[in-house]
Amino acid sequence: MSLKAISSKDAAALDKDLMDIGGFSLDQLMELAGLSVSQAVYRFHPLTKGKRVLVVCGPGNNGGDGLVAARHLAHYGYAPSIYYPKQGKNELYERLKIQLQNLQVPFVPDFTAALQSTDLIVDAIFGFSFQKPLREPFPSIIRQLEETKIPVLSVDAPSSWDIQEGPPKAGGEEPGATFMPAALISLTAPKPCVKWYKGRHFVGGRFLTKEIADKYDLDLPEYSGIDQIVEVGVNADEKL
Amino acid sequence: MSLKAISSKDAAALDKDLMDIGGFSLDQLMELAGLSVSQAVYRFHPLTKGKRVLVVCGPGNNGGDGLVAARHLAHYGYAPSIYYPKQGKNELYERLKIQLQNLQVPFVPDFTAALQSTDLIVDAIFGFSFQKPLREPFPSIIRQLEETKIPVLSVDAPSSWDIQEGPPKAGGEEPGATFMPAALISLTAPKPCVKWYKGRHFVGGRFLTKEIADKYDLDLPEYSGIDQIVEVGVNADEKL
Repeated sequence: MSLKAISSKDAAALDKDLMDIGGFSLDQLMELAGLSVSQAVYRFHPLTKGKRVLVVCGPGNNGGDGLVAARHLAHYGYAPSIYYPKQGKNELYERLKIQLQNLQVPFVPDFTAALQSTDLIVDAIFGFSFQKPLREPFPSIIRQLEETKIPVLSVDAPSSWDIQEGPPKAGGEEPGATFMPAALISLTAPKPCVKWYKGRHFVGGRFLTKEIADKYDLDLPEYSGIDQIVEVGVNADEKL
Repeated sequence: MSLKAISSKDAAALDKDLMDIGGFSLDQLMELAGLSVSQAVYRFHPLTKGKRVLVVCGPGNNGGDGLVAARHLAHYGYAPSIYYPKQGKNELYERLKIQLQNLQVPFVPDFTAALQSTDLIVDAIFGFSFQKPLREPFPSIIRQLEETKIPVLSVDAPSSWDIQEGPPKAGGEEPGATFMPAALISLTAPKPCVKWYKGRHFVGGRFLTKEIADKYDLDLPEYSGIDQIVEVGVNADEKL
């Protein structure tokens, strides 16, 4: 299965449509997005592969999706921890934090130390609205994500990658040229940068209507049963 | 598995705690409640048993759970329709309606006619805050639910039943004495009236923390995998 991609600009317009025309609140959309991320984790990295999941959250909605996913993971029996160095200040993120604190999910202060004791990393740092350049502390985090042997699942896009143009150029100033997560979950629809992605690829967003899919010229993936995600195949070299 | 029940009064206090202490918004809780209802439908009445589901929604949050469930059911491939005679006016219910209208889910005006062309009924009329007496048009609807051969899945409680005291007395003025849905999903925890219930019984609410469960002396059911529901067995005579 190969799905059409949505540009960064259209993804922003679609999100706005979901709220203005679609009747969704950000609370609802983030709940559904985070739920699909948690299901992708369960599929890609079942509990038998290790329960410890370090969720790295950025300051915006991608980070919020990570917070929701972490809550569901805690209920599934994982042992999530959160690294959240630049915390979004809005009321929704504050509430998502409280939900995790009430589950005794730790917010850890040191990324390098946390990397030593996890089985999986969820990269919920930046999504479709990412704009260069990376600001501290994220360049250092991306460098560590490039180097670690621990599997990474990225939410919506590998953080540091340009949504349209893919990974930064090798040898340039920006880190991330060799960052290749083992798994990716595209929310709503793949972004153009998946062209450069090699690894397991999931799609979530089982709330799109046909009308919105048509407006943005997207495919509605064929979900199975009650799944909130669908695996759209391993992206590999020959598909580039 | 037998789970402790929560009184009507405690269920209201718990809901308030989830929002005041737990950090949840009503949007989030209703999304998760409706999602579990949709999963109970999928488990109790898979698509192969017939796709048509008539969701009967009451004016409050139980009806809202039904609206969310109907949206998920539409995405699973069911053909839901909604009977919603006393529509809650708050902004959340309005948005949930828009979400369904955008999926072309019909809102039907005539319950008796709708009953002739459905494979399953979801009773999302009244939940834990139900207080007698039933007001029109609900007595007539309950009488039809008592008589129909079409299976009914009730959300949180069989509508018309007293949450503490169970079904109305036979021969009394209130209908519902012989209403016995084939399936029931208790949200968060069973209500005391399950003592009188015979049929398949599911529980949803995979967001409770241990702290809240302890406060209200509840059991946390053992969910499996990524399920949002768990079946707690068929309630039968011998368990009364």
